[in-house]
Amino acid sequence: MTITSSAVRGRTDLCTAIENELSGLIGKRASAATAYGPDFARLWALAGQNVLGGKFVRPLLLMETYDALCQRHQQYDAADSRQRETAISIAAAIELLHYAFLLHDDVIDGDLVRRGHPNLIGSLLAEASATARTDGVNGAEGVNSADGVRGTRAGSSLHWAQTGGILMGDMLLAATHQSFARADLPHELRLRLLDLLEHTINETVAGEQLDVGLGDGVIAPDLQTILVMCGYKTATYTFELPLRAAATLAGADFAVENSLATAGRHLGLAFQLQDDLLSTFGDPRRHGKDPFSDLREGKETAIIAHARTTHAWPDIEPFFGMPELSVGDGEHVRRHLSDCGAEAFVQGLIEEQMHAFNSQLTTTIPASVRNVLLDLAGQLEGRQS
Amino acid sequence: MTITSSAVRGRTDLCTAIENELSGLIGKRASAATAYGPDFARLWALAGQNVLGGKFVRPLLLMETYDALCQRHQQYDAADSRQRETAISIAAAIELLHYAFLLHDDVIDGDLVRRGHPNLIGSLLAEASATARTDGVNGAEGVNSADGVRGTRAGSSLHWAQTGGILMGDMLLAATHQSFARADLPHELRLRLLDLLEHTINETVAGEQLDVGLGDGVIAPDLQTILVMCGYKTATYTFELPLRAAATLAGADFAVENSLATAGRHLGLAFQLQDDLLSTFGDPRRHGKDPFSDLREGKETAIIAHARTTHAWPDIEPFFGMPELSVGDGEHVRRHLSDCGAEAFVQGLIEEQMHAFNSQLTTTIPASVRNVLLDLAGQLEGRQS
Repeated sequence: MTITSSAVRGRTDLCTAIENELSGLIGKRASAATAYGPDFARLWALAGQNVLGGKFVRPLLLMETYDALCQRHQQYDAADSRQRETAISIAAAIELLHYAFLLHDDVIDGDLVRRGHPNLIGSLLAEASATARTDGVNGAEGVNSADGVRGTRAGSSLHWAQTGGILMGDMLLAATHQSFARADLPHELRLRLLDLLEHTINETVAGEQLDVGLGDGVIAPDLQTILVMCGYKTATYTFELPLRAAATLAGADFAVENSLATAGRHLGLAFQLQDDLLSTFGDPRRHGKDPFSDLREGKETAIIAHARTTHAWPDIEPFFGMPELSVGDGEHVRRHLSDCGAEAFVQGLIEEQMHAFNSQLTTTIPASVRNVLLDLAGQLEGRQS
Repeated sequence: MTITSSAVRGRTDLCTAIENELSGLIGKRASAATAYGPDFARLWALAGQNVLGGKFVRPLLLMETYDALCQRHQQYDAADSRQRETAISIAAAIELLHYAFLLHDDVIDGDLVRRGHPNLIGSLLAEASATARTDGVNGAEGVNSADGVRGTRAGSSLHWAQTGGILMGDMLLAATHQSFARADLPHELRLRLLDLLEHTINETVAGEQLDVGLGDGVIAPDLQTILVMCGYKTATYTFELPLRAAATLAGADFAVENSLATAGRHLGLAFQLQDDLLSTFGDPRRHGKDPFSDLREGKETAIIAHARTTHAWPDIEPFFGMPELSVGDGEHVRRHLSDCGAEAFVQGLIEEQMHAFNSQLTTTIPASVRNVLLDLAGQLEGRQS
């Protein structure tokens, strides 16, 4: 009981520290942005609201791992405190990176909503459309037709909003690098973090490109490609990056860092596969999403990749990627996906990943850190949203 | 004569040094990219071709200014040589930034061509379309309709290609920051360059947002806004950034740096205004562009902003932003733009900028650097493309 409440208090304190750091990083830029007029300032204001409303999954993982790795220090002195502030600045920068990726992902996918609320693009669109109706300036209608998006008032507003998404993503990517480049660390350590950042961005971009290539039919949707894509697109920056950064900042051995990274990748892949299972087979009252959106969008998941290899595929294919899929058709497809073994197959993949994750824990990872990871893994079990 | 040929040789040597640095920066990343499959590697290969085929305007300005500022050193020792290598690395990074901006600008504008050749997006589109016709994989057609771009095979290929543009722009923006963050300099100097980079990106993004807002009819097209937009979007990163970076790297006084930056901004604005004049009134046999593309696109330039304030506007407006503008109509509009005084007005603005530029030269700027700027300004006169 005492342990639990102190753990909860620890997490609350961490959240506050991360939030303060992010408020500082964004607030200073939001203030400077006002010099460039209301539209530019609006980008920073919206980004601030969205970033500060997040759950800080990645910064928390970094800081909890960092604190666990630093427990070897019996005495906590001024140098430790300064180092921990640096760790918090890197943790906050990773949250900015996450949001930069989300924004460009939303532009690429044409999404206007995230977690039931308008995303930055959706907010900009609503504001531009409202202005156009009341006191819009003249000149845009029918002006631009090169890209097939503009050419109407509604198209212009969407173009304006998506441009905001691209540009704000660029500025957040820049802000992430600024935090890494300015980290109060010996230059050699700073270079290691910069290497890690570069590796992470490359791998996440490669994952995003694979994901889009699968959706656009440019890349063949085999299981191996889909698993690689999940690892690159999510596991790398959500799990490997915070864990490796924590190890680097805490001065852990490279063997510990590598073991943490491997464990993190397995866990990340397990989470992603479970996301896919929940989207299709989970209880929509719990996860709050359209239960057939993956099927309607024709999302190439491990479930679908397995189903393609079974006799059930001819019964599923006509409905896959059908935007107007009815609830009855959706339930029909879901039954086939379950009966053909695709659901059980992906459950098996998750178990494999969790086995590989657990086997990493028995190696070089210190016991204190093991608990951080087991706590995270515990969220996987019984997860319904 | 001797001076000219040594100056030409100097520039050729500089071009080689910049090209080598860029080849290194891109080559190392292109090699690493092959581990992520052919599509990811293709992004780096195409980016490499495009970047290395550039004219290096910005890196040359940086290096020529840097060398001119360093002439005070009578003896050229190993430390100087190492410092100069750092300057070249920053010059090359600025070229990567330029290309990152171009790529995201092309995504935003829906452009597939630059200087008569397919840009990265155009190349990816052509390759994806060719693959789709010959051995395309199944699954994409009609799958995605959320963004109104996909939904057809052609739409999917364009979506794939534009995604490549966004992602490659992100990686080049990251690579720019990596070079700045790793610069072999005292940390304090490195921080000054990082400040400069952040300032530049903010201002360029603000300029891009204004430009898009003007095109989409979200922002009112008054002259003041258009001039501010030109300064932010082009003058900042093309002139101010290389000049300030050169001053910082050469250890010049802050007064010199500020004077160079002010001169650069005036010159940059003059170039941008002249671009607009050439597009509309220049000889298409010399500049090689569609002479009516600005009018067809409804581009909000200083020429148009002035014309709006004259009695000629009712005769121009019906044709402004008309995609199917005929040559006869185009010539009619051009005549009106000239007769109403818009052409002369913008020529006057250019003269004002050049006057302000010249008045900076008589201040704190050393004579050796003055020649670099005068050489650049000389390209403005008699320019036809």
